[in-house]
Amino acid sequence: MLMSVSALAQQALFNTQNLTSPEINKDGTVTFRVAAPKAVKVELTGDFLSKPVEMKEQRGVWTYTTPVLGPELYSYQFKVDGLDYLDPSNVYRNRDIVSFTNMFIISKEKGDCGDMYSVNNVPHGNVNRVWYDSPTLGTQRRMTIYTPPTYEKGGSYPVLYLLHGAGGDEEAWVTLGRAAQIMDNLIAQGKAKPMIVVMSNGNANCDAAPGEWHKGFYKPSFMSHSESPAKATTEEAYKDVMSYVEKHYRVQKGKNNTAICGLSMGGFHTYAISKLYPGKFGYVGLFSAALNMGGGNTPVDQQIANDKTISKQFKTLFSAKNKPNLYWIGIGKTDFLFQQNVGLRKYMDANNYPYEYYETEDGHIWKNWRNYLIVFSQKIFK
Amino acid sequence: MLMSVSALAQQALFNTQNLTSPEINKDGTVTFRVAAPKAVKVELTGDFLSKPVEMKEQRGVWTYTTPVLGPELYSYQFKVDGLDYLDPSNVYRNRDIVSFTNMFIISKEKGDCGDMYSVNNVPHGNVNRVWYDSPTLGTQRRMTIYTPPTYEKGGSYPVLYLLHGAGGDEEAWVTLGRAAQIMDNLIAQGKAKPMIVVMSNGNANCDAAPGEWHKGFYKPSFMSHSESPAKATTEEAYKDVMSYVEKHYRVQKGKNNTAICGLSMGGFHTYAISKLYPGKFGYVGLFSAALNMGGGNTPVDQQIANDKTISKQFKTLFSAKNKPNLYWIGIGKTDFLFQQNVGLRKYMDANNYPYEYYETEDGHIWKNWRNYLIVFSQKIFK
Repeated sequence: MLMSVSALAQQALFNTQNLTSPEINKDGTVTFRVAAPKAVKVELTGDFLSKPVEMKEQRGVWTYTTPVLGPELYSYQFKVDGLDYLDPSNVYRNRDIVSFTNMFIISKEKGDCGDMYSVNNVPHGNVNRVWYDSPTLGTQRRMTIYTPPTYEKGGSYPVLYLLHGAGGDEEAWVTLGRAAQIMDNLIAQGKAKPMIVVMSNGNANCDAAPGEWHKGFYKPSFMSHSESPAKATTEEAYKDVMSYVEKHYRVQKGKNNTAICGLSMGGFHTYAISKLYPGKFGYVGLFSAALNMGGGNTPVDQQIANDKTISKQFKTLFSAKNKPNLYWIGIGKTDFLFQQNVGLRKYMDANNYPYEYYETEDGHIWKNWRNYLIVFSQKIFK
Repeated sequence: MLMSVSALAQQALFNTQNLTSPEINKDGTVTFRVAAPKAVKVELTGDFLSKPVEMKEQRGVWTYTTPVLGPELYSYQFKVDGLDYLDPSNVYRNRDIVSFTNMFIISKEKGDCGDMYSVNNVPHGNVNRVWYDSPTLGTQRRMTIYTPPTYEKGGSYPVLYLLHGAGGDEEAWVTLGRAAQIMDNLIAQGKAKPMIVVMSNGNANCDAAPGEWHKGFYKPSFMSHSESPAKATTEEAYKDVMSYVEKHYRVQKGKNNTAICGLSMGGFHTYAISKLYPGKFGYVGLFSAALNMGGGNTPVDQQIANDKTISKQFKTLFSAKNKPNLYWIGIGKTDFLFQQNVGLRKYMDANNYPYEYYETEDGHIWKNWRNYLIVFSQKIFK
C-alpha cells in the first residue's frame, strides 16, 4: 500500500543515473561504470591502483574492471576530462579535509578486515556527539563517544581514548576509521572487551569538525581552523576530556581500565598525553606517530635524550608505579615517519623501557590505522 | 610549532582546487566559482533559481553571481557538459536518497531562519545514534536522539518525536532538517522549552539509514529498502520506540509533555500514530502530510468518513480525556498534497475537532519543513 505513494520523495532536485557502480563481481574483480557521453577521456583513480587507469567507453558509459582485489575498504573517484568526479551511483563517501572519495568494501570471509569494517548483523553500540566544557581551553568542544552494545543494560566499562591525525577531527575515526564497526565486530566475536571509545578533537584551536561549530561553513584547510591561537595544547587540555567522560559515563577507572592510542599527530598526542599523565594509562598505542614535532634534523632519540623535561617524563612514566602494561608502536615500512619511530625505539631500548613493536607494509594510510586499531584493541584490558 | 608538520595530512589521494565558492558577498549576492578548463558549457542549478543558469568562463574558471538572496539554507550543484557536478570548493553537502547537493546558509540578522539553521555560539545539545530492540518488528533498529544542552546536568524533559518523509531516514532531520541547530537556537533564545527530540526511522522494512545496517553499501532507491516485507507497520511498532525512550532517558511523561510531528510520509505516520495511541500526545503536528496513502480518487474527508475504524479512532482521539492540546496542520500553497489536507480539515471541521492551520508559500520542500519545525516547536509544552 505504501508503494503507491512514490510521488512522495523528499525534495529531489536533480536527476540520477541508473547504473550499478561499483559492482563487486563474484570472481573478486570490481567493475566501475559512469555515464559521461560528452567526455573525451575518463580515468579511474583509487588506492587499489598504482596510477590512474583509463576507462573504456561504449554508448556514453565508461567502464573499468579491476583485477581481483583482496579484503579492504577502498577509496576511489573518477577523473572526467581532468575534473575530479565522484561516482554518482555510489552514495558512500568519505571526506578527508577538503577531498571526498567514494568507498567500497571487499570481504572474502568472516573475520577478514573487510568483514571487520562492515556493519554486520550483530549488536551495535551507540555513537554520540557530545559537547563538553573545556575550562583549560575556555571553549565548549565536541567529541564522539562510542558506547558498547551492552552499555544501556548497565555495568561499568573500560575506556579507550582514540585520537585522529592532523587534518582530521572528531569524525575521522567513525568515518574513515570505521571504529564503530570494528568495535561492534570485535566485541561480538569476543575478541575485544566491551569498552567505551572516546574520539576527541585534537585541534585545540577549534571546537569541532568543520561546519559543526560557530565558525560556520568555512573551507577547511590543513590544521588552520581558527585565526586565534588556542589557550593551551591538546595534551594540556586533555584532563578536561577525561574528567567529563569519568563524570558522565559509567567508567572503570585505574590504569588497567584506561587506554589511549592515536594516529600520526594523534600518535604524537598519545605520546605526549601518556607522559603528561603518568600512571593514568595502562595501554598506550602509537599509530604512525609524528614524533619530530619541533622539526629540525636531530634524530628523535637524541632529541629526547637532550631534553631534560621529556627524558624525566619518560622515567616517571616507566617507573614501577606508573609503567603501562603495554606501550605499543605500530608503523608501516614506507611511512615517511618511519625513521622518527626508529629514533623513539632506539631511545626506549637504550633506557630499557619496554614496548611492543608492530611493523606493516605500506605507509601513512588509513588501511594501516584501521588495522592497528583491530590489533591494539584486542590487546587491551586483558 | 605544530605548523611545521604540514606533511602530516591524513591520506590525501587527490588534488583540490584553491577557489572560494560559494562566496557570500557583502551586498547579499552570492558568487559561485568552478574550475573546468576543458568544459564547453557549465551551468548552475539550485533551489534559489527557477531554472539552471549558464556560468561565464575566464581562464578556465566559470563564475556566476546571483541576485540578492534572502535568509535561507540553499542547495545547489553545477552541471558540467551535462554532468551533475558538486562544488569541489564546498565540503558542505546533503544527501537525499541518491542525490547529493552542496549547501550554504544566508543569514541577515539574528533570529532569521538562516540564523536558526546556523551553529551559533550557544550551548549545544548532544546528538546520539541509538540502537534499540523492536520486538514488534523483530529487529534491532537505529534512531537519532537530540538531548538539550542542560540534559547532562540532570532533570527530566518533555519529548518531541520528529518523523521524516518517504526517501528519508533517521538522518534526514539532523542533516537536511537542521533540527539540532534549530533546537539549540530556540532553546538558547528562550523560545522553545528544552526538550528531547527523537528522530526514529519510519521505514519499517529496514533497520537504519543506507550503509548503517547489515544490508551493506546498497544503492538506495525510493522506499525500497529490503526484499522482505516488514512484520508490522511503523505506527504499530511505534510503541517500541516510545518504550525505549521512556526507559533510557529522563522523560517527563503524560500528554502535556509528549509531542509528535512529521513531514510528508512522516505526516501520515504522525496522523496514524496519534490515532493509534489516543491520549499519548498532547501536541500533534502534520507537516505537508500524505493522507491518501491508499491511493484512489475519493477525497480524504470522504475516505475518513466512510472508514468506520478511522472515524472511531478520531472520535476517541478527540474525546475529552484524550484531546490533544494542539493539532497543527501546516502545508504550502503549491504542495501536491494540498487537496488531501483540505480534505482532512473538511472532515475535522464537520466533526468539530479543533486544529490550528498554518499555510505557507511554496510546495513539498525542506524550506517549509524546517520552518514548520521552528513554528511548531515553539507552541508545545507550554
